[in-house]
Amino acid sequence: MRGGPVVSTKQKIIDTDVHHEIRSTRDLLPYLPDQWKRYIAEYGWVPERAIPFNQVRKNTKYRMDSIPEDGATPGSNFDLLKEQLLDKHDMSYAVLTGWFYEATVAKGWYEFAAARASAYNDFTVDKWLSKDKRLLGSITIPREPEAAVREIDRMAAHPQMAQVMLPIGDFAWGDPYFHPIFEAANRHGLPIAMHLSASITAQGGDFLRYYVAWRSLHPQAYMTQVISLITNGIFDKFPDLKVALVEGGFEWVPFMMHRMDSAYKALRQETPWVKRMPSDYFRDNMRFTTQPWDDLTAREFMNVIDMMGSEDMIMYASDYPHWDFDPPERTMPHQISDSLKQKILYENARDFYRL
Amino acid sequence: MRGGPVVSTKQKIIDTDVHHEIRSTRDLLPYLPDQWKRYIAEYGWVPERAIPFNQVRKNTKYRMDSIPEDGATPGSNFDLLKEQLLDKHDMSYAVLTGWFYEATVAKGWYEFAAARASAYNDFTVDKWLSKDKRLLGSITIPREPEAAVREIDRMAAHPQMAQVMLPIGDFAWGDPYFHPIFEAANRHGLPIAMHLSASITAQGGDFLRYYVAWRSLHPQAYMTQVISLITNGIFDKFPDLKVALVEGGFEWVPFMMHRMDSAYKALRQETPWVKRMPSDYFRDNMRFTTQPWDDLTAREFMNVIDMMGSEDMIMYASDYPHWDFDPPERTMPHQISDSLKQKILYENARDFYRL
Repeated sequence: MRGGPVVSTKQKIIDTDVHHEIRSTRDLLPYLPDQWKRYIAEYGWVPERAIPFNQVRKNTKYRMDSIPEDGATPGSNFDLLKEQLLDKHDMSYAVLTGWFYEATVAKGWYEFAAARASAYNDFTVDKWLSKDKRLLGSITIPREPEAAVREIDRMAAHPQMAQVMLPIGDFAWGDPYFHPIFEAANRHGLPIAMHLSASITAQGGDFLRYYVAWRSLHPQAYMTQVISLITNGIFDKFPDLKVALVEGGFEWVPFMMHRMDSAYKALRQETPWVKRMPSDYFRDNMRFTTQPWDDLTAREFMNVIDMMGSEDMIMYASDYPHWDFDPPERTMPHQISDSLKQKILYENARDFYRL
Repeated sequence: MRGGPVVSTKQKIIDTDVHHEIRSTRDLLPYLPDQWKRYIAEYGWVPERAIPFNQVRKNTKYRMDSIPEDGATPGSNFDLLKEQLLDKHDMSYAVLTGWFYEATVAKGWYEFAAARASAYNDFTVDKWLSKDKRLLGSITIPREPEAAVREIDRMAAHPQMAQVMLPIGDFAWGDPYFHPIFEAANRHGLPIAMHLSASITAQGGDFLRYYVAWRSLHPQAYMTQVISLITNGIFDKFPDLKVALVEGGFEWVPFMMHRMDSAYKALRQETPWVKRMPSDYFRDNMRFTTQPWDDLTAREFMNVIDMMGSEDMIMYASDYPHWDFDPPERTMPHQISDSLKQKILYENARDFYRL
């Protein structure tokens, strides 16, 4: 009816994993205090390179068409990202997860790491969030809890800063040493996102020689974090805290829910501060993202949903501009119901970010 | 009919994971060369203790009723094991997997480790296999490939030695350094079994503080080995070789089959010696055992089977005499079909061990 509400049958979309990039570390210079500028501007500091085999594919890390005309780093050009992602897929929101995780996983020299994290957050506000209201940001922090809390307190008021980013590396975030970080996020009503960094090793500490192996195993890193959060009582301390496990897959989740429940039933006296069944924390406090979709058929996917016991735990992610980008319309087999698709593409993330 | 064949409707059973034990390391002395005896008999050598929290439960590691009357180590008394396991459950076969993995995962002093492995194999033949034809053994080896191959060659002819045991520790068995071990097993027509040792750490190398965490994550160690075997081309070199992943769960298997297929499709040029889809190696070359059954309902279990695409990949295991022992009649929900139960309880293991 004229003048009445128009209900579109089109799916709404929130993309929960978009990697905006700096062109080079020099992009951080305007936001760094003078004492730190010299390391990048004059002394040639570069981030550590954590894995040796990133060149297995031509342009391994990126979609071929995501390189800007001037040859800059894919993901570093707002206009191109807007065109290829926000506008093309008519997204309601896209959550920028960035890449400058190294400030968090870096071991030592925490003061410089803290400065890099702050500079990166200011860069994200200045060059990205200010340009489009559909963009949401992630607060990058250093690993050292006191500095991390300061940075969360500094950035939380920005209306587009939607979460605190805890990259996954070679340490477990559930350790009580890190609890002030969770306390700060919780105090500001911000959810946590966890995303792998390159600084992970295989279970067992051995190094698995090939990128295909590294890629196959990196969900292990997420399992380790989930186990660590639950057994250390994070969700008993902060029952309303939500954590998104981004780019770690979701196919393993029902397995780990069952596995932890079974272990907990037999051994709960060891961790009496953990009050609920582990699978309850999965369902109430954790969300998982779609990309990379491991070619599950609709039936296989519904098996996973059935074993999770919830349709609310999975959120769409594209991973733009990386090579294994999943566009929203091709992420899920068409046989999945429209209502479940709408939850995954939009509603679950809307609720997670309280949009 | 009198004189005709009697077909029992009762399920036949093969138990693929039974931990026979030494009472103490002194049980190895009769089988050790003189030069090594002194370390145990006189100098007080004991195996390393790998995890600090084994006393979370009373009698943590063992079934309460499995302690022999004389107070010896559970699993060290043949008569009791025969009564509680072989006879009670009317088993056709039980595969002894032992515990003396430390000779394999021990770092350094490989000559002594090789002597311990040999002594343990001789002890197994002498005190166990010779007493009951239903018992099958596992060849324990040192980690050092040359000595390992010698030990396989020494033991393979024993008609009850059914497999070569590769414990899972902090290194990946697919590394080409270890290929002579697979070559030797393959040459003798013996399958490989992998079973976790206590010497595993979490993904990321961090230590997860609690036994409930350690227990929840130990399937990661199996995922790492599986990825390592496939990407290093073990099953292309030895297409008929079978590997049993024992006590690592099976619920994660469909997830990893999909995950590896998906990674392989995108990155196969990195490992051109891997000729088939990873899921093909899972289905044709690997078997997984039931214990610990993580409380899956029949429907959830059938979801897993559906996603595996095979009914032939799972074999029953009890884990006797450990505390989380699964008796055959209670391992699976009753709604699972008799024909599938018979595969899991008997036929899949019969085919794996060519019995």
